[in-house]
Amino acid sequence: MPELPMTVPANGLPARVRIHEVGARDGLQNEKTTVPTEVKAEFIHRLADAGLTTIEATSFVRPEWVPQLADAEALFPRVSELPVDLPVLVPNDRGLDRALALGARRIAVFASVTESFAKANLNRTVDESLAMFDPVVTRAKDRQAHVRGYLSMCFGDPWEGPVPIPQVVRVAKALYDMGCDELSLGDTIGVATAGHVRALLTALNDAGVPTPALAVHFHDTYGQALANTLAALQHGVTTVDASAGGLGGCPFARSATGNLATEDLVWMLQGLGIDTGTDLGRLVATSAWMAGHLGRPSPSRTVRALSHKEQ
Amino acid sequence: MPELPMTVPANGLPARVRIHEVGARDGLQNEKTTVPTEVKAEFIHRLADAGLTTIEATSFVRPEWVPQLADAEALFPRVSELPVDLPVLVPNDRGLDRALALGARRIAVFASVTESFAKANLNRTVDESLAMFDPVVTRAKDRQAHVRGYLSMCFGDPWEGPVPIPQVVRVAKALYDMGCDELSLGDTIGVATAGHVRALLTALNDAGVPTPALAVHFHDTYGQALANTLAALQHGVTTVDASAGGLGGCPFARSATGNLATEDLVWMLQGLGIDTGTDLGRLVATSAWMAGHLGRPSPSRTVRALSHKEQ
Repeated sequence: MPELPMTVPANGLPARVRIHEVGARDGLQNEKTTVPTEVKAEFIHRLADAGLTTIEATSFVRPEWVPQLADAEALFPRVSELPVDLPVLVPNDRGLDRALALGARRIAVFASVTESFAKANLNRTVDESLAMFDPVVTRAKDRQAHVRGYLSMCFGDPWEGPVPIPQVVRVAKALYDMGCDELSLGDTIGVATAGHVRALLTALNDAGVPTPALAVHFHDTYGQALANTLAALQHGVTTVDASAGGLGGCPFARSATGNLATEDLVWMLQGLGIDTGTDLGRLVATSAWMAGHLGRPSPSRTVRALSHKEQ
Repeated sequence: MPELPMTVPANGLPARVRIHEVGARDGLQNEKTTVPTEVKAEFIHRLADAGLTTIEATSFVRPEWVPQLADAEALFPRVSELPVDLPVLVPNDRGLDRALALGARRIAVFASVTESFAKANLNRTVDESLAMFDPVVTRAKDRQAHVRGYLSMCFGDPWEGPVPIPQVVRVAKALYDMGCDELSLGDTIGVATAGHVRALLTALNDAGVPTPALAVHFHDTYGQALANTLAALQHGVTTVDASAGGLGGCPFARSATGNLATEDLVWMLQGLGIDTGTDLGRLVATSAWMAGHLGRPSPSRTVRALSHKEQ
C-alpha cells in the first residue's frame, strides 16, 4: 500500500493546521492498564520527534480521580525540555499551583456545556464550574500562561440528547470573556455531523468568538470525525485536536472508538497539501509501539493499513 | 448513546442522495466463509426492508473466478420481485446473457483505469477490456437495461502509485461514450483525499461527463471515505456507493477495513438533513445479523456504537 496520499489541494482551506495532540493525556486517562512514567515520557518524546508541536502532556488532577495520570509531577520534568508546547490540564487552583511550580506555560481547563455532565464530571452546576475556573484562568493569565478552555458535550449529551447551540455559545462566551486564549469544542460522544459543526462555528463567530480562537475536538464513535474536521477546516478552523493512534475511548460509549486518530487526520491534511510539519511514518511507528504497550491494536485506519504493511 | 444525530442542514448539498448498496456483491465477493444462498437472499430482503432502493445483488462471472457468488442463478430469482433496483455485475457477453435471461434490468461492467489492475483482474490491457465491454454495453442498452460502469483504481493503484487524473478521464469518457448511464468512481485502495476527489469530478465535468452520471465509491482503508463523500456531495454528486456494515475488504490491503459503511454514511446524511429513505436502526440490525453469520464484528463505527448499545 502507498505510504502517502497524492497531494491535491482544495479551495478555501487553511494553508497550515496546528494539530493539538491529546494522546498522552486524553488518550491515556481512561486506560485501565497502568502505563509506566518512562513509557509516557518516551511516547511524548517520540510524538515530538514525529513533528508534533503541541502535545498535551498530562493532567494535574487529584491522583485518586485519574489514577493513570497520578504521575504528573514525575512525568512533566522528563518532557519539559522538549522544544514543543506542552499544555497540561488543571481542574482548579490547586492543580494550577502544581503545574506552575513545574514550569508549565500552557494550561487547560475542562468545562461542560451540559448540566448533566457538569454534575457527573465536576460535581457542580455549569455556573458553579465556571465560577471555579474564573480565578484559575485569571491567575494563569497573570503568569503569562496560555489558557485553553475545553468544552465538552458541544453537540450531544448521553443524558440530555442533542445540545442546543445557544447553550454551547453561552458557556463558550463565558470562557472566552474570562480570558481563555483558545476554546476546544468537544464532541465528546461523537454524534456531530458536518452541518451541525458549521452552524456552531458560525454561531460562535456571531457571538464574538473569532475562528482563530477555536479548535475542534471530534470523536469517531459514529465514524464522523474526519468529515466533521473537513467541515471545520472549510470554515477556517486551523487547530484540530487528535490522538495518536486514536487512543482514548469515550467513557460513555461501550464502542472501542474514541478520539480522531492523528494519523487519519495527517493523511487527509497531507493529501490536501496542508502543512502540519509531521512525519506520518514516525507517527504510525509510535502508535504501533504504544499499541504494543497497551496490548491491543490501534483503532486508527491509517495505523492499521500502514503497520500491517510493515508486518 | 443516541440513536440518531441532530439534523442541521448545510448549504450547497443535494436534497436527496441515492445510496447504491454494494454489500451483497462487492461486500461478500472476497469472503472466505461460504454464505448460503438463503442467507444472501434474506440479507437483500432485509436491506430492502431498511429502505435501500438500489441493492447490487450478485455477479454473473464464471463461478470459478468468484466462488462466493457462484450461486447467482439461484439467488437472483429469490430477490427479483422486490420493489427495488437490483443491479448485477456482468464481466462479458456470456454474463450478460445469464443476467438478461433471469430478467435483470440493471447491469454493471467493471473496468480498471490502470494497466496493472486491468492485467491482474481481467487479464487484458485497458483498451482490450474496453473493447470487450463495448458490445456488452450496446446490447444491454438495446434491451433497455440501465448500465453502470465501474472504474477501479481512480486515485491510486497498489502497483503504479498515484493515478493521473487524465488517465481516469480517458477511461471514464470511453465508458460514457459507449452508453453507460452511470459511472462509479472507485477508490479501490482507499488513498483518495478530499481535494483529489473534487479535482477528478471537475475534470470529468470538463470532459463532458455530467455530475448526475457520476457516483462515488470510497474505501475506508485510511479513514477517508466519509470525508471524501462529503467533498463529493459538495460537488453535487447524488449517488454514493456504500456497503452495509462496511462489508468487503480491499483485496490488496491486509487491513481489515474496506468499503464505506452504509450506516456511517446514513448517520452523516441524516445529520445533514439529506433524505435517503432508510431506517438506520434496521440497517444496523441487519449488519449485526450478517456479522454473526460471518463470525466477526462489523468494522462500521456506527454499527459498533449502536449494536453495543443493544447488548
